Amino acid sequence: MSAPAATPAHSCKVIQSGAIAKRLLEEVTAGIKALDHPPRLHGFLANADPAARKYAEWTQKTCTENGVDFTLRQVDREALEDEIREANTDPNIEGMIIYYPVFDATRDRTLQWTVSLHKDVEGLSPQLISNMYQNIRYLDPPGNTRKSILPCTPLAIVKILEYLNIYNPILDYGKRLHGKRITVINRSEVVGRPLAALLANDGAEVYSVDVNDIQQFSRGSGLRKQKHEVRDMEGWGLENCLPISDVVISGVPGEKYKVPTQLVREGAVCINFSSEKNFNPDIKEKASIYVPAIGKVTIVVLMRNLLRLVQNTPRVNGTKV
Amino acid sequence: MSAPAATPAHSCKVIQSGAIAKRLLEEVTAGIKALDHPPRLHGFLANADPAARKYAEWTQKTCTENGVDFTLRQVDREALEDEIREANTDPNIEGMIIYYPVFDATRDRTLQWTVSLHKDVEGLSPQLISNMYQNIRYLDPPGNTRKSILPCTPLAIVKILEYLNIYNPILDYGKRLHGKRITVINRSEVVGRPLAALLANDGAEVYSVDVNDIQQFSRGSGLRKQKHEVRDMEGWGLENCLPISDVVISGVPGEKYKVPTQLVREGAVCINFSSEKNFNPDIKEKASIYVPAIGKVTIVVLMRNLLRLVQNTPRVNGTKV
Repeated sequence: MSAPAATPAHSCKVIQSGAIAKRLLEEVTAGIKALDHPPRLHGFLANADPAARKYAEWTQKTCTENGVDFTLRQVDREALEDEIREANTDPNIEGMIIYYPVFDATRDRTLQWTVSLHKDVEGLSPQLISNMYQNIRYLDPPGNTRKSILPCTPLAIVKILEYLNIYNPILDYGKRLHGKRITVINRSEVVGRPLAALLANDGAEVYSVDVNDIQQFSRGSGLRKQKHEVRDMEGWGLENCLPISDVVISGVPGEKYKVPTQLVREGAVCINFSSEKNFNPDIKEKASIYVPAIGKVTIVVLMRNLLRLVQNTPRVNGTKV
Repeated sequence: MSAPAATPAHSCKVIQSGAIAKRLLEEVTAGIKALDHPPRLHGFLANADPAARKYAEWTQKTCTENGVDFTLRQVDREALEDEIREANTDPNIEGMIIYYPVFDATRDRTLQWTVSLHKDVEGLSPQLISNMYQNIRYLDPPGNTRKSILPCTPLAIVKILEYLNIYNPILDYGKRLHGKRITVINRSEVVGRPLAALLANDGAEVYSVDVNDIQQFSRGSGLRKQKHEVRDMEGWGLENCLPISDVVISGVPGEKYKVPTQLVREGAVCINFSSEKNFNPDIKEKASIYVPAIGKVTIVVLMRNLLRLVQNTPRVNGTKV
């Protein structure tokens, strides 16, 4: 009889976003190649933030390497709104991305609203955001030929959960998270809240955590509701939602914040979307899967949204109408 | 804006065992076709139970339709032990199945022990059972070319859980249930206890329920143990394990027993392996997936075990050695 195999200190599978991005990229580049021209994306950089510049350059590199015609334009922030309006009507620009923050959150929101929803690769236009919260998945019901664009980072996390088989394809489309309990730590308007809504619309019971309180996003028992509803979980803390959550997704800015490992359920799936490490190294002693960062997936999702926008454009004999 | 789609009364996916059996059968028949002859299976019927006869005839039909050379032999039960010994050395018999019960459970066990482990399609030989509990997956370590046969009904349930994507293929082989909590209601020696052991060895935390008590089968936090360990959950009842279980598997004989739906977790996966209906119809208001019966899968697993036995037989130039 042979000796039993050595038991490792833990069984956690650490999955880097590059591996996930690669598979998604294959699908996206196949779609791009099927177009009659490289899709044209413009990036507007209107701040002096070195992190934003780095991200812009990284977008440019990934786009260029994968068949997207990317133009990076550095503009004065006071001129940005006019630039966006011009881009909205310029037939040579099929999608645009603004590197935020430009001003403060309130004024930046008016910039987001200026971008035409037909060119909004980031999925931040009011109608797109409204469709997402209402669980309306197409721009043209009841024909349903043009998919409504979803915000990049939340969609990247959805794509990661699909890759990790948390979405169960044996269930019907739109219900594939039924039975999953997911904690999302962060309730920002750009990522945390739309993400909680998306996951609940797909059937999950979501605990949305911010510094003040915890909210439950859910379609109810048996998914009887068509879209999610929100209720306040009065008196709840992480000690209530973490031990019952199959998946923990955290995106808290700042190096100080750490998810308390001892509250995480044995074998949970843990995903960090903060630029800092929200999980302590000992999470690997507890989790079945740990995804330490998501950036590479987000950029592929950006290209995927651009592809959708170009595919959504009505054409007659190859000419836009 | 179109009206929202009508919301159904529930979102539960009811999956019949025929659909699951069909996919598994494709793999098995491909393996059978690759052999140089139809594998030869003998069934021994030594009781007058009409249910056993029906099952035997059903085995015969499925085997014959799918390339297995099946012979059904009706024998006197007092002659059965000798018949088995003869079959053990008969080169024309590659696998055998006994339709139990023949005598009582204790004497039937000696019959099970009489079947050569090289011809035991039911996976009930002592060495096979011991391998299963010890999480030893091959008959010939460290070469690991000949897979140890697993008991039919527990293996059928494993195959169903694979079909339903409860096993997560992104995790390493042997750990694909890590993070899953599973309640198994039935702790018989033939199904419930080996099933609890198999699932725990694959990484699940299993609550094994019988009429007297609840036991936990688990490899511990981070799957640090190489095989499962069992501990008594003193004072536990269904009200403790059902609300935290992702999967509920029930096989209680008799029409009276019903799993209490109100204790089952929202979106749980529910599988019935009793010949009676252990779940009330309202389980569909609560579960994400419900498998009402498993019989058709079990019979394909029987054929799969036969195929493994034939593949396990060492050959030199096509001749058994």
